[in-house]
Amino acid sequence: MRSALVVGTGLVGTSVALALSERGVAVHLRDVDPVAVRTAASLGAGTVDGSADVVDLAIVAVPPALVGRILADIQAEGVARHYTDVASVKAGPQQDVIALECDTVHYVGGHPMAGAERSGPLAARANLFEGRTWVLTPTPDTETETLNTALELVALCGATPVLMGAAAHDRAVGLVSHTPHVVASLVAMRLEQAEERAVSLAGPGIRDLTRIAASDPQLWVDILSANAGVVADILEGLAADLDDAVAGLRAMASTDDAKRSGGAQIVEGMLRRGNTGRARIPGKHDGRPARYEAVAVLIGDQPGELAKLFTDADRAGINIEDVRLEHSTGQLAGLVFLSVAQGAAVGLEETLRARGWRLR
Amino acid sequence: MRSALVVGTGLVGTSVALALSERGVAVHLRDVDPVAVRTAASLGAGTVDGSADVVDLAIVAVPPALVGRILADIQAEGVARHYTDVASVKAGPQQDVIALECDTVHYVGGHPMAGAERSGPLAARANLFEGRTWVLTPTPDTETETLNTALELVALCGATPVLMGAAAHDRAVGLVSHTPHVVASLVAMRLEQAEERAVSLAGPGIRDLTRIAASDPQLWVDILSANAGVVADILEGLAADLDDAVAGLRAMASTDDAKRSGGAQIVEGMLRRGNTGRARIPGKHDGRPARYEAVAVLIGDQPGELAKLFTDADRAGINIEDVRLEHSTGQLAGLVFLSVAQGAAVGLEETLRARGWRLR
Repeated sequence: MRSALVVGTGLVGTSVALALSERGVAVHLRDVDPVAVRTAASLGAGTVDGSADVVDLAIVAVPPALVGRILADIQAEGVARHYTDVASVKAGPQQDVIALECDTVHYVGGHPMAGAERSGPLAARANLFEGRTWVLTPTPDTETETLNTALELVALCGATPVLMGAAAHDRAVGLVSHTPHVVASLVAMRLEQAEERAVSLAGPGIRDLTRIAASDPQLWVDILSANAGVVADILEGLAADLDDAVAGLRAMASTDDAKRSGGAQIVEGMLRRGNTGRARIPGKHDGRPARYEAVAVLIGDQPGELAKLFTDADRAGINIEDVRLEHSTGQLAGLVFLSVAQGAAVGLEETLRARGWRLR
Repeated sequence: MRSALVVGTGLVGTSVALALSERGVAVHLRDVDPVAVRTAASLGAGTVDGSADVVDLAIVAVPPALVGRILADIQAEGVARHYTDVASVKAGPQQDVIALECDTVHYVGGHPMAGAERSGPLAARANLFEGRTWVLTPTPDTETETLNTALELVALCGATPVLMGAAAHDRAVGLVSHTPHVVASLVAMRLEQAEERAVSLAGPGIRDLTRIAASDPQLWVDILSANAGVVADILEGLAADLDDAVAGLRAMASTDDAKRSGGAQIVEGMLRRGNTGRARIPGKHDGRPARYEAVAVLIGDQPGELAKLFTDADRAGINIEDVRLEHSTGQLAGLVFLSVAQGAAVGLEETLRARGWRLR
């Protein structure tokens, strides 16, 4: 890929443009907002579009509802050999593209799965997509050369491509991203009116569960509205399971022994299925859940404690696979959980004890 | 406190006994299982009970359903001046204690909030409660000297005492611990039958949300059964909110503009209330949510990367308040999010960039 046109210089569009420019691709920039496009250009994302040449790839980086219309416009202009987009939902834009009779042979939908706490070109980074998954949604129409050009885009941005159908993509992000967001918010909502003393007992479990409930509501309404039907379907399934859980718990609270044990069976069955589902979430390197052992270390709160701890852990020659900090309310001391490959915990514990660390 | 009797040498009882023995308290041990009590004694938790002397404090460390009966028995024996227990729910045991006409003047309920992934005396540690919250549930009957003795126990174990009523305690742990557990399991359940490709898109949001769904189902059925009515009530409130969310999303999926905007308003309102609830979860030191800024650093997967990073961060003289690792499926590289006090991120970023780290 030698040349590209980015239409829409928001966070994602400008980040794509920066990544491509860094790799030597000649990038042209367009946006309805002249300030946004000049800002992106001043950051080194490319040049404000003035070229009459046909580029290799046009990247439509506009909100989902506008993808079809913008694609139709720039295809009518004939600006590029191949076309893609970066919208976070795929079925709606695909329907629009077909309804507007766009050229679907030279177009493939895309969704780079990178976080976006802030928006606009000033928040853009060339490495926004590094190490992230980038879904592409080819159809039977899509020409191989178009798909290959999109795959080159993904590679130039440092991301990992995954091919899926548009509807399957929307169901997947509905399940693993949109639904968890709503659920985290619903649980956090219950803390809104809770007694101060009750909230003071909150520990790492509910803290991790509600982390994503701190996100920007306006941004998430936009995301959810583009996939609302899918998310509603998944939440309805969840609501049915929730009713079963409540019925099971009510039976567990009964004075009747048979009822109690029946309720416990229902609830235990659900917890076991939760175990199974949780175990399917991919681990670190191989896409499969890894088995780790955790070593829990007590640390003080002085600067440098973590540096010392990791330097000492390093002496054991053991790779730390994951790290989690846990602090109690009102306490200076904290616990650091170091996850290591199965079988490696004993060696790490010996090293740390020998260096004076207190393990739990 | 000079002497104590621990009745029940499981994980919690033996850990209490180890902590007290370390601080020079003469600890006597009892358990219906002679192997368990000898194991605890061999670990240095105390001596197998043979004393005829009255101890300062008896700690009942048996399952919630047995607390009342055991307390009645040992009070009839007159083994101690003061009595407490360590059961994870408080209202049921308190009702039993009253029904069995125990001496409520010299008894105060307790609940040390420490994790218990494993059970039995061999999993016990003297520092299990360090930095943890320990709830005490005095009644109007409770003598000040009994409460002071329990407070001394909490201090000797390195925990932070919080006084609450028994029912308020059960509602609080129902809200911040038991309910999140069920919800995490319900969301994880939905992954059980999901397509492989869908699960492969799972990111840090759903991973954090479902972390506690990996816990032991049998242990959690026991915990939930002792607080089943409270948890069912909270989940019913959640179910009503969930129905509202589904209705809002269905409206957002409508073709009618007014309906769509009405649905978006409902959902945005819920997300905002989730923000408010989430913000109430205590932060690190002061029991109030702290305001942090996050610095995102790209790291490789070689041993020593984290040690180098924290050593370099340390040069900036900035205390790392929290740390979170994020890995994508199939990727060696990862992102480390370092949380620092508000205003400190710029200095940390400069230091790290100067030392060759790549920031996102």
